[in-house]
Amino acid sequence: MLNAYDYPRNNSMYLPRTYAILGTGALGGFYGASLQKAGFNVHFLLNSDWQHVTSHGLIIDSVDGDFILPQVNAYCNVENMPPCDVVVVALKTTQNHLLSDMLPKVVKDDGVVLVLQNGLGIEEEVAEIVGSERVMGGLCFLTANKIAPGHIRNLSYKYITLGEYSNDYRSIGVTDRMRQIKNDFESADIPIELAEDLLLARWQKLVWNILYNGLSVILNATTHELMADINSRNLVEQLMDEVITGAKICGRIIPDRFVQTLLNNTAKMKPYRTSMKIDYEERRALEVEAIVGNPLRKALSLGMDLPQISCLYQQLKFLDAKNRGLLTVNC
Amino acid sequence: MLNAYDYPRNNSMYLPRTYAILGTGALGGFYGASLQKAGFNVHFLLNSDWQHVTSHGLIIDSVDGDFILPQVNAYCNVENMPPCDVVVVALKTTQNHLLSDMLPKVVKDDGVVLVLQNGLGIEEEVAEIVGSERVMGGLCFLTANKIAPGHIRNLSYKYITLGEYSNDYRSIGVTDRMRQIKNDFESADIPIELAEDLLLARWQKLVWNILYNGLSVILNATTHELMADINSRNLVEQLMDEVITGAKICGRIIPDRFVQTLLNNTAKMKPYRTSMKIDYEERRALEVEAIVGNPLRKALSLGMDLPQISCLYQQLKFLDAKNRGLLTVNC
Repeated sequence: MLNAYDYPRNNSMYLPRTYAILGTGALGGFYGASLQKAGFNVHFLLNSDWQHVTSHGLIIDSVDGDFILPQVNAYCNVENMPPCDVVVVALKTTQNHLLSDMLPKVVKDDGVVLVLQNGLGIEEEVAEIVGSERVMGGLCFLTANKIAPGHIRNLSYKYITLGEYSNDYRSIGVTDRMRQIKNDFESADIPIELAEDLLLARWQKLVWNILYNGLSVILNATTHELMADINSRNLVEQLMDEVITGAKICGRIIPDRFVQTLLNNTAKMKPYRTSMKIDYEERRALEVEAIVGNPLRKALSLGMDLPQISCLYQQLKFLDAKNRGLLTVNC
Repeated sequence: MLNAYDYPRNNSMYLPRTYAILGTGALGGFYGASLQKAGFNVHFLLNSDWQHVTSHGLIIDSVDGDFILPQVNAYCNVENMPPCDVVVVALKTTQNHLLSDMLPKVVKDDGVVLVLQNGLGIEEEVAEIVGSERVMGGLCFLTANKIAPGHIRNLSYKYITLGEYSNDYRSIGVTDRMRQIKNDFESADIPIELAEDLLLARWQKLVWNILYNGLSVILNATTHELMADINSRNLVEQLMDEVITGAKICGRIIPDRFVQTLLNNTAKMKPYRTSMKIDYEERRALEVEAIVGNPLRKALSLGMDLPQISCLYQQLKFLDAKNRGLLTVNC
């Protein structure tokens, strides 16, 4: 029997689902192009690259094979986009103030918004807009960069962990709708892991994201350098402990071996420039609130102070303001 | 009646005291030159500038009047220096491993070693070498920079807070010896404040030193910028609270109004490049251990964790290693 979280209410079980990609950067461009190549009807929202992609389409370089889509459905605003079955939110979280206007226009009544952003708490914001039964979340393990307008290169990883959102991140297990979207993505050669507990999956990713993103910007360092020095490595481990404490106060247990595996994998990884470091170097707004501020506030609202993450947060806010010329110093 | 902390045992009450300056940088050069100008017999230990100062003496530019000392007693090692009544330790703390060899050779039996370095715990190390009854400490509020070999410029502040050291920083109040050294410095136009409790004075200075030195390096920021942004200012205040917690576990109470005055004064100060920032930019070893590590370890030894200062410490150790090419990354 279908429930509120199960697809489809109408006939979309029998037709290929339509996809909207809100934000065609490295992430939205890579996944959206992969879905279109697999035969799905995909609609891309673009900003600065709209003109270029309208004329030239998308180019994907990937370890699994390069391909070109000479023609894509490109839009510069949501007004002209058709309502879609699955609306992928692939904007930077710093643009999320736009969602309350965008989402009602692009998601079908029986559609779903799939939040593929980093950090915590975004699904709650989206649920306020479209209702919690129309929200899912995903964590992307993707190593793609945009190397030119409409031109995206992916170096190695591309898998997604997918989960349902329900009020207060109550775990509701695996739904049919999750399996259907998994089928869509896997037909496009994107591996999907289904998470029974989206909040646990989000905290697990934060164990890496908060500190490597944060320290890479603050200390102007690669992941390799952070792992090579005894002091920064100790700090990494202390910060991971604080993330785990944050997860725990939210009722989610992350086992010690998870951390050890993460540390070992990161030490073995190719030197890696984090997404926040890339944003910082290109003087774009940093995703501090979604990745660091929201977890910090969530833990604090439950009575748990995370002092070292708080230190990172305030350092990042300062650097972000200074980096974008927003610091006013009266001399 | 004289006690072990009172000058002099022999005839040095009746002769002008002789001074040795170990480390003739901005601080040692400025105070030593001021003492020589006032008529004291001063002996300067130099390193890189020895040849230049031997030939050309010292030049002081100061808001209170410029002066030149064409001839000074300059030494490139302690072997040739005469034992002195007062041995001023004005090295960077990163050079303190040299003290166990130097001090016994330059301090008279009834002389005193005056530690004019930043941070915590240095007097304990010096007491191990010369005995605790021959150790005093001072906190310098000095805005001097060395602008060329043997050429020092002081912009505004120059006063010193002076205190006796005794075992475990037990407070022993104001001694005659302190008053005598105060007289010497004040005859050289250096204002001296006498502290009854050296450890309290050191913790009070750390309320400023730990975080402005640390954050100025980590965030590449002036004191003004740190005070202008709401997030960095909050972090400054949180870090000050941790320093005060550290002082408290050592039995020293720093009142709230001290912090408020410090914040207000710093916001009103001219934009200021901290000594640690200068060292960092010149790729010299940072005084992380004396200024941040020792207070942290002292508090921890008494059962108190200071997590945000610990975060700063580890960030600074990483940056110091990377800045001096000491980070080994295996790819």
